[in-house]
Amino acid sequence: MSVEIEETLKAKIVAQGEIVRTLKTDSSSTEEAKTEAIELLKNLKIEYKNATGKEYVAPGARATKQKKEAPKKEEKVNDNKKQSKLGVGVAKDENYSEWYSEVITKAEMIEYYDVSGCYVLRPWAYSIWEAIQEFFDREIKKIGVKNCYFPMFVSSAVLEREKNHIADFAPEVAWVTKAGSSDLAEPIAIRPTSETVMYPSYSKWVQSHRDLPIKLNQWCNVVRWEFKHPTPFLRTREFLWQEGHTAFANQEEAIEEVYQILDFYARVYTDLMAIPVVKGRKSEKEKFAGGDFTTTVEAYVPVNGRGIQGATSHHLGQNFSKMFNISFEDPEKKAERAFAYQNSWGLSTRTIGALIMIHGDDNGLVLPPRVASIQVIVVPVGITASTTAEMKEALVNSVKKIVTSLKDSGVRAEEDCRENYSPGWKFNHWELKGVPLRFEVGPKDLENNSVLAVRRYNGQKSPILLDNLVTDTKNLLEDIHHAMYNKVLEARNEHMKVCLKWEEFTPLLDDKCIILSPFCGGVDCEEKIKEGSQRIEVTEAGQSSMGAKSLCIPLEQPSVALPKNCIHPECSQKAKFFALFGRSY
Amino acid sequence: MSVEIEETLKAKIVAQGEIVRTLKTDSSSTEEAKTEAIELLKNLKIEYKNATGKEYVAPGARATKQKKEAPKKEEKVNDNKKQSKLGVGVAKDENYSEWYSEVITKAEMIEYYDVSGCYVLRPWAYSIWEAIQEFFDREIKKIGVKNCYFPMFVSSAVLEREKNHIADFAPEVAWVTKAGSSDLAEPIAIRPTSETVMYPSYSKWVQSHRDLPIKLNQWCNVVRWEFKHPTPFLRTREFLWQEGHTAFANQEEAIEEVYQILDFYARVYTDLMAIPVVKGRKSEKEKFAGGDFTTTVEAYVPVNGRGIQGATSHHLGQNFSKMFNISFEDPEKKAERAFAYQNSWGLSTRTIGALIMIHGDDNGLVLPPRVASIQVIVVPVGITASTTAEMKEALVNSVKKIVTSLKDSGVRAEEDCRENYSPGWKFNHWELKGVPLRFEVGPKDLENNSVLAVRRYNGQKSPILLDNLVTDTKNLLEDIHHAMYNKVLEARNEHMKVCLKWEEFTPLLDDKCIILSPFCGGVDCEEKIKEGSQRIEVTEAGQSSMGAKSLCIPLEQPSVALPKNCIHPECSQKAKFFALFGRSY
Repeated sequence: MSVEIEETLKAKIVAQGEIVRTLKTDSSSTEEAKTEAIELLKNLKIEYKNATGKEYVAPGARATKQKKEAPKKEEKVNDNKKQSKLGVGVAKDENYSEWYSEVITKAEMIEYYDVSGCYVLRPWAYSIWEAIQEFFDREIKKIGVKNCYFPMFVSSAVLEREKNHIADFAPEVAWVTKAGSSDLAEPIAIRPTSETVMYPSYSKWVQSHRDLPIKLNQWCNVVRWEFKHPTPFLRTREFLWQEGHTAFANQEEAIEEVYQILDFYARVYTDLMAIPVVKGRKSEKEKFAGGDFTTTVEAYVPVNGRGIQGATSHHLGQNFSKMFNISFEDPEKKAERAFAYQNSWGLSTRTIGALIMIHGDDNGLVLPPRVASIQVIVVPVGITASTTAEMKEALVNSVKKIVTSLKDSGVRAEEDCRENYSPGWKFNHWELKGVPLRFEVGPKDLENNSVLAVRRYNGQKSPILLDNLVTDTKNLLEDIHHAMYNKVLEARNEHMKVCLKWEEFTPLLDDKCIILSPFCGGVDCEEKIKEGSQRIEVTEAGQSSMGAKSLCIPLEQPSVALPKNCIHPECSQKAKFFALFGRSY
Repeated sequence: MSVEIEETLKAKIVAQGEIVRTLKTDSSSTEEAKTEAIELLKNLKIEYKNATGKEYVAPGARATKQKKEAPKKEEKVNDNKKQSKLGVGVAKDENYSEWYSEVITKAEMIEYYDVSGCYVLRPWAYSIWEAIQEFFDREIKKIGVKNCYFPMFVSSAVLEREKNHIADFAPEVAWVTKAGSSDLAEPIAIRPTSETVMYPSYSKWVQSHRDLPIKLNQWCNVVRWEFKHPTPFLRTREFLWQEGHTAFANQEEAIEEVYQILDFYARVYTDLMAIPVVKGRKSEKEKFAGGDFTTTVEAYVPVNGRGIQGATSHHLGQNFSKMFNISFEDPEKKAERAFAYQNSWGLSTRTIGALIMIHGDDNGLVLPPRVASIQVIVVPVGITASTTAEMKEALVNSVKKIVTSLKDSGVRAEEDCRENYSPGWKFNHWELKGVPLRFEVGPKDLENNSVLAVRRYNGQKSPILLDNLVTDTKNLLEDIHHAMYNKVLEARNEHMKVCLKWEEFTPLLDDKCIILSPFCGGVDCEEKIKEGSQRIEVTEAGQSSMGAKSLCIPLEQPSVALPKNCIHPECSQKAKFFALFGRSY
């Protein structure tokens, strides 16, 4: 870390701080400008900290209390820059928001970027997305969905065709108004989602019931220019997702698909990411704008007791097909036009944020084996001053042989035989990056014909015999997947409480619970529940006031009998079902 | 086709025609606005033709000459809309531009879209892109390249850091200036390519030579708002591509990679798409702006004798690393900073356009087997009035059995047992869509324990014994790949001529040749060669004036001795090499 770079960063922070102060006192400046400026300032400070290993202290400010550095087992002073990057400087429970920022940058998931709300997905994060893509793409192709690509630009006339839909998205739409130095005749929107982009084509393609079903999907980027505080993965202005758009001649078939896709989404969480989810339907207030009903998978984040929406599968009914005239000659009544029943469904890179929050710990990221791009890291150990060059070479060769035999059998293994880092440094490094298994291989281990396997998620150590290397490794990875799943499931179940009394509602939320309560389903009542349960919360993006919303109406209702009345004391409606409430992302 | 839809389309065309006329006479209107309006009018007319099966005739206009309809073997009047879609209405040689438009829409590759220069990639086109992705992604991962995702937005300050680079792209950059109803503080660009998006991060990541090489790739969309006539696949305002960006500590390694990637690109053409290419280096005039040198694969389009750039792999030298400070402590001279050597390389959906143009024929698309999402279509035939229900059922079952056994062995086969279409209709349909092999299965064939295999690319028919079904099918698909490749290679070789006399240069171009001529390599001289060889050409996007440019300086030079002088009579420089010239896309 050169002094020069440090000074440059300091100068940038000072200048940016000045901009923020000016904006704050200038009544003509927009909220947007302020948010952007603050965000940039925040990023500069993070950059400073990452680069220097210390908090930025404003010139002339009082010295702040030093953050407790998490003790690291062994840190060889060898490469200053690498050194300063290692280790998460704050416990997850202690300052969750800072923990998150540190983990995503230090584990090389995210690089900050100079356009506010946009982040670089580094290979360590992107490879998780690739694992999800591979699974989901295969599943939807099995049921006849085909991939395609529609333009990301949409004319305002088409974008605004479905009124409820656009009302929800309009405040967040980014507009292109210039190309080169010319103004465009009309501003063109960037897709926030592609219903309105795709359905004019569907209208052309559907003339007869034989043209149905249409089952298309695309993997693409979308833009929602939110003005709330952005958070990497969780709330970003550009994000990656898949969006499926299907059209059927009859409603039954359409609805069947909604739940089939919901199952695939649930499996992305449970089977790949080792995260339990609750499947359910969204309330009227929370459903997709312009659709008939929305189904969702909802996960629980133990550290702060918040819910997080995992992915949604919407039944659009005939709303869009009527707006866009996706119709065909009714096979029953020849003279009439029948309208198609449609679905849309999406899963985004937000999944990766959920994974980090739910599994990560004080030492950094913890990756579930099935999405980890490196499942096993093999590190040579036990080299001392008395180790000869031959012994060292033999050790390294053994490590390479182990990695090769694992790779050949489909285990994603890598060696770390770098000379210029100590084993301790490597342990910390790969722990921070969340590799599920570490194999330590020393001369003694080889004498015993074994390696020492260390599980990332709980630190447990046990030897594996080289004779059973491949089988035992595969079994161990499977065990880890299930153990990680069960650990989260337990935490979730302990904090998912049935609550029948309003006075217990907010205390339970404050106790990091998500709550199953009788609910009338009304939009106004949900608004009241939210207001009545508000509290200031510290989030990844700073403090915000947060009440409970309904996460979903679980498909599987609690075994408790449904009381007559809705949970909110001022509500005069009857309870229709148990809804799952929680503070949420 | 309802009269109502026809009338709506007519009304739209009339209104749009009015807009075009107004713009043309209004001196204050921009070129951009005119181009957009004309494009929209053209698309409306194509839509009209696709929907009605006839040319749009302006109200009050004289009747135009009917286009010759290519005779179709058998057309059962059964479904009016499908009917009207079948068959390419014009021969490839006769009106190439219209042929292209018809093939891409009728073969369901492209749907036109209401934002000018943007097109819908339908599954039939997108699946080719997926085949290319799968191959290329696997190859680059083998050499250690990792996928990632960088934001599509870039601030103007960063975009404009490398001056030569931005000078080339600036006129085509699309700018976001609004979000919701707020104006952004500063306009933000959409990436035309990601050098400037990515390299600030590279600068942060590289401190030591041990941080190199960095080898990243992303599959994404980019936007180049060209004002020339857009053409689906070939010149579109948004397109899909992969862009690789790598950085090395030394130049040798970097340059080695440039050619390694070029080889992968060549294999995408030769091994997947059955298209021969010439590998070469771009001239100074044609190289990537801001880079040291550009390598390219160039294909030949027989129908009009034009060259088409296939993909490019650039060595950027240290230009960008100096601009963006991608540097490290020089391991040789401790006190100094050394700058990284960089490459960037890209392959886009334009490949699909090349494939269509090169292999397509009067009956439509012709897909090379390795990228065809359906390689074999199996059609039951020989059902007559005397066929009993049992016989029919037995036939359909046999067809399904054949398809299953092909699929089980990895051949992408499908059956077409639809009741409401005649075999003849199906033959035309799948020919139009370019499926490499059709199997006709009738009662007589089954008696002979065989199917009749019909090759799409040359119409040749031969029986395949069911006993050898899988092996023979696989061999036949391989044969087709090689035969398609050789057919294009022959046409290319016949039209790739060494030319040593300037007076023969333009006549050879007019004779659909690409030309190997001695060349000094100068930018001005290349400009003169272009001017001196201009001619009005009909392209997919209408008429345009077109001279020859240098396609590349072939890595493999002709065996003829290099003359002393450059081909252009006014050039006083010596010839440095043979360059390949041609009119081009």
